[in-house]
Amino acid sequence: MAPIPEAPGISETATDNNFSNDEARDKSRVTIVGSGNWGSVAAKLIASNTLKLTAFHDEVRMWVYEETLPSGEKLTDVINKTNENVKYLPGIKLGKNVVADPDIENAVKEANMLVFVTPHQFMEGICKRLVGKIKADVEAISLIKGMEVKPEGPCMISSLISQQLGVNCCVLMGANIANEIAVEKFSEATIGYRENRVTAEKWVQLFYTPYFSVTAVQDVEGVELCGTLKNVVALGAGFVDGLEMGNNTKAAIMRLGLIEMKAFCKLLFSSVKDSTFFESCGVADLITTCLGGRNRKVAEAFAKNGGNRSFDELEAEMLQGQKLQGVSTAREVYEVLSHRGWLQLFPLLATVHEISIGRLPPSAIVNYNEPKAVRGSNKL
Amino acid sequence: MAPIPEAPGISETATDNNFSNDEARDKSRVTIVGSGNWGSVAAKLIASNTLKLTAFHDEVRMWVYEETLPSGEKLTDVINKTNENVKYLPGIKLGKNVVADPDIENAVKEANMLVFVTPHQFMEGICKRLVGKIKADVEAISLIKGMEVKPEGPCMISSLISQQLGVNCCVLMGANIANEIAVEKFSEATIGYRENRVTAEKWVQLFYTPYFSVTAVQDVEGVELCGTLKNVVALGAGFVDGLEMGNNTKAAIMRLGLIEMKAFCKLLFSSVKDSTFFESCGVADLITTCLGGRNRKVAEAFAKNGGNRSFDELEAEMLQGQKLQGVSTAREVYEVLSHRGWLQLFPLLATVHEISIGRLPPSAIVNYNEPKAVRGSNKL
Repeated sequence: MAPIPEAPGISETATDNNFSNDEARDKSRVTIVGSGNWGSVAAKLIASNTLKLTAFHDEVRMWVYEETLPSGEKLTDVINKTNENVKYLPGIKLGKNVVADPDIENAVKEANMLVFVTPHQFMEGICKRLVGKIKADVEAISLIKGMEVKPEGPCMISSLISQQLGVNCCVLMGANIANEIAVEKFSEATIGYRENRVTAEKWVQLFYTPYFSVTAVQDVEGVELCGTLKNVVALGAGFVDGLEMGNNTKAAIMRLGLIEMKAFCKLLFSSVKDSTFFESCGVADLITTCLGGRNRKVAEAFAKNGGNRSFDELEAEMLQGQKLQGVSTAREVYEVLSHRGWLQLFPLLATVHEISIGRLPPSAIVNYNEPKAVRGSNKL
Repeated sequence: MAPIPEAPGISETATDNNFSNDEARDKSRVTIVGSGNWGSVAAKLIASNTLKLTAFHDEVRMWVYEETLPSGEKLTDVINKTNENVKYLPGIKLGKNVVADPDIENAVKEANMLVFVTPHQFMEGICKRLVGKIKADVEAISLIKGMEVKPEGPCMISSLISQQLGVNCCVLMGANIANEIAVEKFSEATIGYRENRVTAEKWVQLFYTPYFSVTAVQDVEGVELCGTLKNVVALGAGFVDGLEMGNNTKAAIMRLGLIEMKAFCKLLFSSVKDSTFFESCGVADLITTCLGGRNRKVAEAFAKNGGNRSFDELEAEMLQGQKLQGVSTAREVYEVLSHRGWLQLFPLLATVHEISIGRLPPSAIVNYNEPKAVRGSNKL
């Protein structure tokens, strides 16, 4: 089972002023790299905790990609004046101790703990800019979903950060629709860590609130891969919805998806644990994504149209230029399966891709070769 | 992982006439005890397979509790004339080889395989009637969800059958909304068996169709308990729906429910396997029940009314006299937890009961004591 983090030590609401210089020096400074919807919610969670916990400096610095708002004001100025990210999380107070900083190098230079939460395609560039600009003993965590899966293996964002910056990097994933957490609806998340449990517990303390329950598990790869693979399963769930096949079938597809996610992760990384899939990053994120979410939604429309309108066309119409993560991940996963001779072992993941490119009709989502369906689901 | 049943050996579509007397003697005769909605669907599944598989007699006998229809005809006569259970599964052909029999003793006397699928409260009486009336080497399977959980432990229907009749008894559970399977929408199920894998495989062969994918696991208790406990979690999911807390919260409650189901089963029966909860009887049945289902629906109404209208009142209004399994199971589970000093370990299961009797408000579904929520979810 998952390691047991201690209940966060929510002690007195001390401010930095109560402490001597020595004590202040030992406190960790937190910087959030990214300030979109999820990044802003992370800032709110973290800022509420740094005020309460003596192990952290009150101030939470947030690097904001500077934009000029229609009013002519700078986004960072407005955030610092109103404590609100008016563009990406309007109506929510982040906390007075959140400081928006448009200068990424300045934002990270004092930090002991870095929280990465940018769109994944920017991470390589950001890492390059940060080399040599951060403290030597910094700890990192990635909240970024959507790494690429290349035929030679997945290109984990946490590995990218670790390798480029020479730092330890945890991940935080889970059933985390940002706007629901922003209004303090109960939610859970999973932190994946590699070796250092003490650091993992520090991250748990930093994120945990009564409405955001965080658990740490020693399984970075499992946790991080879940966040990507679930989007492929959500396409399958969307096909079922579009074909109006009912809840039995949808539950079956979600279950088969979970089983194949687990098997795929374990074949790629023998360290991945079964128990990880019972965590929020596993079954719960899968459920959330298959109930709501844009992958499910566009896949539903795709199936309703009998596969006659392409995903590109539907995306353009339904998502205002955003692309679906699931479709590209399905293609990448298919390439891995094909490359390694694993297609027979993963009928669901393979079929989702074949449907999404029009090679199979949407109804094929429940129509594998018979022995494949039985054996596939049982062998994994 | 689950044992791997071989793909069902769907061979030639032979009839009994092709075989010598010796061969005919070795064939298994199947009788279904029960003819409600699910029993009728089971008859359809089984009858399609006995026609195809040489190991079984074509004829499937179905014990029908005799009723006189508004037309004045006997239900068994109509089933035998039309191949349709016009009362409990109208519009679906069961197969010409299904023979409805109003005499339970006659129905079972030649059977080698007995499928029990009656309302659970009738099973004790039925078992008493069957003592001494069945063949010595008969194999049984129970499709009955909803055993009782008594403080000294659950009263498993499969154990009742085994003990009363002196036969081996498997169970079949899963995400199985009968009407969806009846119209051949894809679904899965799990067979739990105790020792005899060969028998389990025979049951798999008897039920498996391309739209009904069956897996056998050596874990009767885990499979059977899942079918009961999920109704308690569905109440929790319904509260979340009624309070409009969103998909994150619903996914979190379903996940916590799955974790607590697993922990509860394992504390009661050390033989229960983690992998069982990845099967259709586990995560998939939980999903189906939390998406649709009457437990979820009435719990949603209960929460919408702020807990001010009792479950009894809502049941009477919404379910035309049917009772919710979940509410009584929640009470029974609470008694076990209380009796054994486990309340702290199962905050979700305990809270569902306390909400259902009005001791806590519906909003308490996400509002455990903080350390309990963190520790509870991690310790299990």
